[in-house]
Amino acid sequence: MTVVQENKSPESVQESLHVVQELLRKHQLVESLVHKQQGPKHDLVESLVHKQNLAELRAKLDELHPADVAYILESLPLDQRLLVWDLVKAERDGEILLEVSDAVRETLIESMDSDELLAAAETLDTDEIADLAPDLPQDVIEELLQSLDARNRARLQSAMSYEEDSVGALMDYDMVTLRDDITLEVALRYLRRLGELPDQTDKLFVVDHEDALKGVLPLKRLLIHDPDALVSDVMVDDVVLFHPEDEAHDAAQAFERYDLVTAPVIDANNHLIGRLTVDVVVDYIRDASESEKLGLAGLREEEDLFASVWKSVQNRWAWLAINLVTAFIASRVIGAFEGSIEKLVALAALMPIVAGIGGNSGNQTITMIVRAMALGQLQPTSARKLFLKELGVAGLNGLIWGSVMGLIAYLLYSNIALGAVIMSAMTLNLLLASVMGVLIPLFMVKAGRDPAVGSSVMITAITDSGGFFIFLGLATLILL
Amino acid sequence: MTVVQENKSPESVQESLHVVQELLRKHQLVESLVHKQQGPKHDLVESLVHKQNLAELRAKLDELHPADVAYILESLPLDQRLLVWDLVKAERDGEILLEVSDAVRETLIESMDSDELLAAAETLDTDEIADLAPDLPQDVIEELLQSLDARNRARLQSAMSYEEDSVGALMDYDMVTLRDDITLEVALRYLRRLGELPDQTDKLFVVDHEDALKGVLPLKRLLIHDPDALVSDVMVDDVVLFHPEDEAHDAAQAFERYDLVTAPVIDANNHLIGRLTVDVVVDYIRDASESEKLGLAGLREEEDLFASVWKSVQNRWAWLAINLVTAFIASRVIGAFEGSIEKLVALAALMPIVAGIGGNSGNQTITMIVRAMALGQLQPTSARKLFLKELGVAGLNGLIWGSVMGLIAYLLYSNIALGAVIMSAMTLNLLLASVMGVLIPLFMVKAGRDPAVGSSVMITAITDSGGFFIFLGLATLILL
Repeated sequence: MTVVQENKSPESVQESLHVVQELLRKHQLVESLVHKQQGPKHDLVESLVHKQNLAELRAKLDELHPADVAYILESLPLDQRLLVWDLVKAERDGEILLEVSDAVRETLIESMDSDELLAAAETLDTDEIADLAPDLPQDVIEELLQSLDARNRARLQSAMSYEEDSVGALMDYDMVTLRDDITLEVALRYLRRLGELPDQTDKLFVVDHEDALKGVLPLKRLLIHDPDALVSDVMVDDVVLFHPEDEAHDAAQAFERYDLVTAPVIDANNHLIGRLTVDVVVDYIRDASESEKLGLAGLREEEDLFASVWKSVQNRWAWLAINLVTAFIASRVIGAFEGSIEKLVALAALMPIVAGIGGNSGNQTITMIVRAMALGQLQPTSARKLFLKELGVAGLNGLIWGSVMGLIAYLLYSNIALGAVIMSAMTLNLLLASVMGVLIPLFMVKAGRDPAVGSSVMITAITDSGGFFIFLGLATLILL
Repeated sequence: MTVVQENKSPESVQESLHVVQELLRKHQLVESLVHKQQGPKHDLVESLVHKQNLAELRAKLDELHPADVAYILESLPLDQRLLVWDLVKAERDGEILLEVSDAVRETLIESMDSDELLAAAETLDTDEIADLAPDLPQDVIEELLQSLDARNRARLQSAMSYEEDSVGALMDYDMVTLRDDITLEVALRYLRRLGELPDQTDKLFVVDHEDALKGVLPLKRLLIHDPDALVSDVMVDDVVLFHPEDEAHDAAQAFERYDLVTAPVIDANNHLIGRLTVDVVVDYIRDASESEKLGLAGLREEEDLFASVWKSVQNRWAWLAINLVTAFIASRVIGAFEGSIEKLVALAALMPIVAGIGGNSGNQTITMIVRAMALGQLQPTSARKLFLKELGVAGLNGLIWGSVMGLIAYLLYSNIALGAVIMSAMTLNLLLASVMGVLIPLFMVKAGRDPAVGSSVMITAITDSGGFFIFLGLATLILL
């Protein structure tokens, strides 16, 4: 008896990757030998070794979970990736395409022709096809639509029409429904007749003859109650449910908060049209947090680790351009004070300190505020309290760190007024950072934008230019 | 019939918060009236209104899900939070303490005496008590241990001993086990006799007489197979399972990859000791991504939105200090070139541009690499490929943006050599950023540290000081 199929334990997907890489290395060794020695006899021997090698690789891939094959494809450079992709059984292509990241999916789909893509898509459920659709060529989608029956065609069309981050885009159609006027015994017989239950099923959906949702029957309750009881007596009628146009973000919070495994999705007329499952929600949560992290560093999208230089440059372009513009503005602020710097060159050395601490502190404030906003915890009544708190923190930090730097500046340049100027400038820039750290996200929400995107660039731009202006301005007024 | 209990739909937790805030506002109005008008008659009237008001608030809280009460507590300033906390039924204290964040939990626990804490903890399961334990006073823990039976005491002690981010710290003990030599019919009768199944149960654990795991029986299979079949014929014996010392991070990846709802946790002798559930994994994923985000901005821990100024300063202190040190080093680099700046003051205005673009680009590289490392996708064999790619991206960006800035510098200062210097300096600093962006995380992993923490500060420190040095150094060599 094997309790664990070893290749499914969390560590061993990396072991699988190593096995595949080892086989690929051997394969490439053979390849290069074939190229070097062209005699007919050698050819035969090598091609036998070669074939055996590929057969081994194929066998290894066949025994892996689709998610693990996806992982391996992601971890391989493009040439090896396509070689492995060719060895994967055609009927598994669909499920693996679902598992890889968008960037890698693009490279795989590029290597397939329309027939292969069609065959791959036809192994999938409608909601899964809809997930692939944005990456599929138009002619494949047309053919797919024609190959489906009316009900599934309608589903695919509506699934493709939902906005990316809506519940509709995440839901599937694997609902098991039943009526409320039958006994549990009948329900149990019905399930046995069905012969299969969709993955993640933790509850059945109770509907009336028009498919309107009346409640849910958790499997737990089905199992523990008397088989003679009626579904209507055992079902639960206070249900956490969603509409397809609800935001995925809110649905994810509800899944977290109420520890859901599945939840029904209904339309405006209370008709059951799909269900949301926790595995999809987990993927969504992960994706959302990944893209937020990437966004913070100005990577427009998930980047294929082995993308070409040119593709990577494009992915990182916009961010560098924006930062260059803000740096240029800061540079012009300094330019306006060139006369002062010429007279007291210490200003040039000290000014980045004033700008830097403002940026760091402002980013701390913004991170706090954006987080509170994402959780919906920032109430108008508490905004004022927060504002005062952030001002307090900034003021205190300004006095502490400003004094430290003021003292150091005095010791370095034996100029007590210069020490006083840098201390005042740091405090003022920290206050500016805290005010803007609260205002920028509030303002972005008012303007209907996501405060997590771009707030950081804005605060840094302001505290840089502002810091240079405050410090050089004060110095010009007081010292010169 | 109510299909949705309105307070459970995702939007309405914020509505509940508004209701509570409205009631609090009324309450405080009454309070302030009582303070102003001291006559005995007024006292009576006001205290009646007062009581009615609190009763309303208490009723509202009673009907809310514990997670929603937790959410409301998080969103309220300290005085209101404690007022609401007092109104929550004592028997719900435990489950609500589990739901709030660490920072807020601290404020709530501070307001409770030992007896209240003991009563709250006693309503919880052993694994839940272990989650609270770090925040409980030692005497409460002692008393708790004494109040438990031997089995649960042993469980609590071992649960408290697991490392924070291990599977052991996340698992619970709510397993339903059965033998493999019974029929499904018998299993079904057993479940009915149990009368209850733990939340999230999607499978039963099949064990031998010594509690060694032999397989799992998914409820799905229990439901669809013939009741006369034996558990041993229907159970699944390739199981994704964990050990208590496994890292939570790896377990979370396995849950995502294999779409798990629950999984068994076994000890070294294959004995079933607990189970991991998806709701806990979801919370873990969310917490880990939150603290990473907070860490990026240098917030040491989740901050209570309404923490005191002093507490907040402490939370943000270390980061500002580190950044101040790196800024000071950069400032000293500039200081070394004060002579050059005095001769050509344009250098002071242009130098932040060179430093800035290096920092931005380096952070992009680091974000990519750290992400690939977290997914375990960075293989030694592919590191060289990645390195070359990042150098290529940096070189190309350097030529493009360097030329743009070189041209602008030439137009501003009519000095063609200055334009050439800034272009070369930007390219060199971008190359430095890409090299360090790959090396820093690799080095941190070698040193056994988490590359996500601190990499960003290090790269910025290097590209700042390095950028100033390269630009001012080149300028001194070529222009002066």
